[in-house]
Parts: sequence; structure tokens; C-alpha cells
Amino acid sequence: MENRIAVVAFGGNALHPEHQVGTAEEQEKNAVEASAAISEIVHNGYEVVVVHGNGPQVGSLLIQMEKAADEVPVLPLYACVAGTQGTIGYMLTNALRQECGRLGLSQEVVTVLTTVVVDPDDAAFNTPTKPIGPFFTKEYAERMAVEKGWIVVEDSGRGYRRVVPSPEPIGILEKSSIQQMIEHHNIVIACGGGGIPVIIQDGEFKGVEAVIDKDLASSLLAREIGAHLFIILTGVPQVAINYGQPDRQWLETITVAEAKKYTAEGQFPPGSMGPKIAAAIKFIEAGGQEVLITSASELDRALKHQGGTYIVP
Amino acid sequence: MENRIAVVAFGGNALHPEHQVGTAEEQEKNAVEASAAISEIVHNGYEVVVVHGNGPQVGSLLIQMEKAADEVPVLPLYACVAGTQGTIGYMLTNALRQECGRLGLSQEVVTVLTTVVVDPDDAAFNTPTKPIGPFFTKEYAERMAVEKGWIVVEDSGRGYRRVVPSPEPIGILEKSSIQQMIEHHNIVIACGGGGIPVIIQDGEFKGVEAVIDKDLASSLLAREIGAHLFIILTGVPQVAINYGQPDRQWLETITVAEAKKYTAEGQFPPGSMGPKIAAAIKFIEAGGQEVLITSASELDRALKHQGGTYIVP
Repeated sequence: MENRIAVVAFGGNALHPEHQVGTAEEQEKNAVEASAAISEIVHNGYEVVVVHGNGPQVGSLLIQMEKAADEVPVLPLYACVAGTQGTIGYMLTNALRQECGRLGLSQEVVTVLTTVVVDPDDAAFNTPTKPIGPFFTKEYAERMAVEKGWIVVEDSGRGYRRVVPSPEPIGILEKSSIQQMIEHHNIVIACGGGGIPVIIQDGEFKGVEAVIDKDLASSLLAREIGAHLFIILTGVPQVAINYGQPDRQWLETITVAEAKKYTAEGQFPPGSMGPKIAAAIKFIEAGGQEVLITSASELDRALKHQGGTYIVP
Repeated sequence: MENRIAVVAFGGNALHPEHQVGTAEEQEKNAVEASAAISEIVHNGYEVVVVHGNGPQVGSLLIQMEKAADEVPVLPLYACVAGTQGTIGYMLTNALRQECGRLGLSQEVVTVLTTVVVDPDDAAFNTPTKPIGPFFTKEYAERMAVEKGWIVVEDSGRGYRRVVPSPEPIGILEKSSIQQMIEHHNIVIACGGGGIPVIIQDGEFKGVEAVIDKDLASSLLAREIGAHLFIILTGVPQVAINYGQPDRQWLETITVAEAKKYTAEGQFPPGSMGPKIAAAIKFIEAGGQEVLITSASELDRALKHQGGTYIVP
């Protein structure tokens, strides 16, 4: 029997939360915890594709590059995303092997470097909004704006940061390879950090200074490989409306129509639940069957429909 | 008809030669040149697996990590190797797509993050010999020796460098996935930088502070996937004996017995042709048919047996 396919996405902060400094030891330990949750999906009978974010990790790499800029050329952002697909991919691969082994699962785990196409005419290129990398002084930020054409913004009173475009993903170049690996029953790690962003220029692929939202990238991947279930792991066990208010209400199952209504009401903030709900809607509207939004610790129960929030047609 | 498989290995300096600073623009341009040569192998009817080195690139990354060490935790060497599999893998994937497209070849290109097992009892762990990363002052090197247990050596009058073990590769964890990718006629980039080195400890894989020689790793990969041809690209069009002497003699085809005899005579220096010949011998002795050592510019002629050095049983 052909297994059902699940795509599971989670943030880079699952491996490097804000309260940690991000040593390899910390990240590898967190990778094992995340993998314990993910291996439950495999254990529940799915073929699994894992998509991880890379926010804190690419931030660290950008700091390292800036600090050594006098000695070593700073690599462009797309190459940094590629680098974090390597480092995070390794940690997850290794941790998933360990946790699957613990459950007696025989699947192989493989990380596929993934390139994602964006549209050079995407409006995001005119209005960069995604803050990345270190905080700078106003003086340094203004110098970089002149020297390198950076767009910099003041960020929450903590200093100045570079913002980059976050265009919508429109194609995944390694799609066929990922599908082939699933057919061979491998657990595949792909689209790390939302994928390495490229545009098509004169028939060739060219890296761009942008980052792709990993929820949108994983939604596209889930659609393109015909996933049955799209799982978004986050910090809360369920999606709520009226979040943080006395009449807060956890949601068990909602339709796309309800999700759109709540979105229009401003129930899901842009920086947190908003992109996840948007990614869920896109998946269902393209013919997907169900989306599950939940936390790592609630995942196993949620897969048995005893928790989490499901979004359905 | 099933195509023949070729594994082709080349150094990280093909993308970042010593006379360049290693900007992304430079490396991407060099990647296109290397890919033009590699696409010729595809054009000659082979399924191709590409193995790249990462010496200069991992050196740059280590400098960047050291410079920011007060602010961002330095990642261990195995994670740095993983990072360069990402950055170099992306550049090569992109360049190969371009060059294969130019030749009208329809193969997909995919980079597989590759983990390589080494033996914790490998004698190399007792005698680290492989210099990596930046040059330090004597004072800094001695401090690191105390603080981090580094082994440091004076290197060619240019300063002090860390040396790390270079153990022999004994297993490739992504072997099956790589084989599956080849069977689906993809061009596969794998084992970058010799692979991410791990040992097996209590039944689990654990990254180690070491680097694996990319010629030995690609030789192992070629054996494990049953490659018909193992190609090592280097700076010279042919292997020579009495190199740099008046009676220098370029070699066209030699047997393993001859290769061993010349090695015993000291014809192939340890830091340059030595490891390539050793990797070639291992491949043939494990049942491989032929090894080709040549330069990128001579490759197309060499594939037609009009150049290069072949090593045969």
C-alpha cells in the first residue's frame, strides 16, 4: 500500500530558541527533541518531508560574516541560506536517524539542498519587510545603506537592522528528486529556511538577496508533491481566536472559509499565526485535504485527532 | 540501456584558487567553468556523481567564526563542513544546471548532504596532520592549544595553524539515496569536502573534529555505488614521473602494480598527487575498472582516450 505523505514545517527557533546562545550542543539537543516529535508522524504511517526555518542560524552566520568582512568576502544572503541548509540539515538528519532508530523505524533520512524560484516582479522586491541578521548602530546602518544599498529600519528599540524582501515562492527546482526520495520511503529534509531564493534571468537561475517564508515554501512543497497532510509546528498546541483576551477560544477544526473570516477580522497577527494560516489556506485551496497546526509536544495526540487545530476544505 | 556511472572529484580550490579572495561572484564564475567540464562527462553518456573539496571555503568560514567568537558560538568543524556542502553545493548545482542546459541535456541536478563514517580508533586521531583554517600568531595558537585542546603547528613560515585528524572514510550514510538519485538519471553532488565526519558511539552517529580527504571519500563512494569510471580532476593534464626533472615522463595508462611501484619510489608527493594515486589504487583493487586523472580543460579529450592518465587493473 502506498503511504500517505505529510509535510511538516517548524521554525529555526525550535533548534535555537531566543534564551539560548545557539551552541552546537544546544542545537543538537533541541534537534533530538524536535525529531522525537517528527518521528511520531513516521510512526503514524506517513511518508514525511521536513521543512525547517533558519532565522536565528542565518542571523548568527551574518554576524560572523560581518565581523570578518575585512578579511573574508561576505557571501550573499542566498549563499548564507544554503549554508544553513547544510548545518541545520546535518543536525536534523542525525537527530532523526537517532529517534527513528529508537522507535525501530527503518527509513533512511536524507537532506536535499533546495532551490526555490521567486518572481523578480514580486511586489516584495519594492518593499523589503523581513528583518535579518544583527542589530547595528544607526551610524553603521546608515553607512551600509550608502555602501551596499541596504534598506535598514529601527527595530523595536533594540537598534537598526537590515530588512530584505520576502517574495512568494513559485517553484521548487528539486521537486522531482524529493518525490523520488519519498517514493523510495526516505524521510526527506528539504526547503530549509524557505529554500535558496533564485529568479530566472535570461533562462538561467540567479540567487537573490531575499528570504522566503518557510511556511509558504512548505505549503508550496506540500501542494507540488501532493501531500495529504500539511503540519505546521508552532509554540502553541492549538490556534485560538481572541488570543490573550478573556473570551479566548481554542479551535479544533475550522474550514478555509472560517479561517479567511478570522483572518479578515485581524485574529491572526502578521508576524506569528498570520503566515501559518495563509500557508494553510493556500494548501487547502490548491486541493489539499487537511492542515494541522499544533505544538511539538501535542503532535502525537493531535495526529490521533485528540488535539491541535485542523483546517479543512 | 543502463548508463555507465562516473564519479568525478575535484578540489575546493577549483572554485576558490589561491590568487582570488573568494567572493561569491568569483566562485560562481569558477563553478560555471568547472561545470562546463563536468557536463562533458554527462554528454559522453555517463550518469555523474560530483564530489567537490572545500579547503579554502571551510578555511574562510573558520576565520569568520573565530572573528565573531565573542558574540556567536563557534560551530564544530563537522558543522562547518556541512555548511560548505550547502554553499558550494548550491553554486555547483546552479552552474551545472546552466551548463547542462547549454548542451541540451535534460538531467536534473541535486545536492545530497552527505555524512561519512570514520573509525574512532583510526590512527589519524592520535596524529592530527591536516592544517585547516586561518594562520595565527604563536601566542594565540598556544592559547587555543590550552583553552580548546587544539594541536597547532608552524606552517611554512606563514604562522601557526591548527591541524586536525584526517581519518579514512569507511561508510557513506546516504549511499542508497545517492544510488536512487542516479537510477532516476539525476546528476548528483555528494560527499562535499569529503563528507561530514561522524563516528558511531553507543549505536548513534556523532560528529567529530576531523576532515576527510575528498579523494579517499570519492574513491569509497565510487566503489560503494559501483561506478565504472572514477575521475580525479587536478591542475595537470597527466600524471608524470620524475616530475620537475629533465627526464620527466607523462603517463598515459598505468596498471595498479605500476602505480604502486612509482609510489614506493616516492614519485608522488603526499600533499599533491600522492592521495589521488592512493584513492585510485583503492578503487581499482576493490574491483573498479578504470580511473582517469586529468585537468578540467583536458577532460573532454581524455574521455575519448586522447589525453589524461588512466589507471587500470
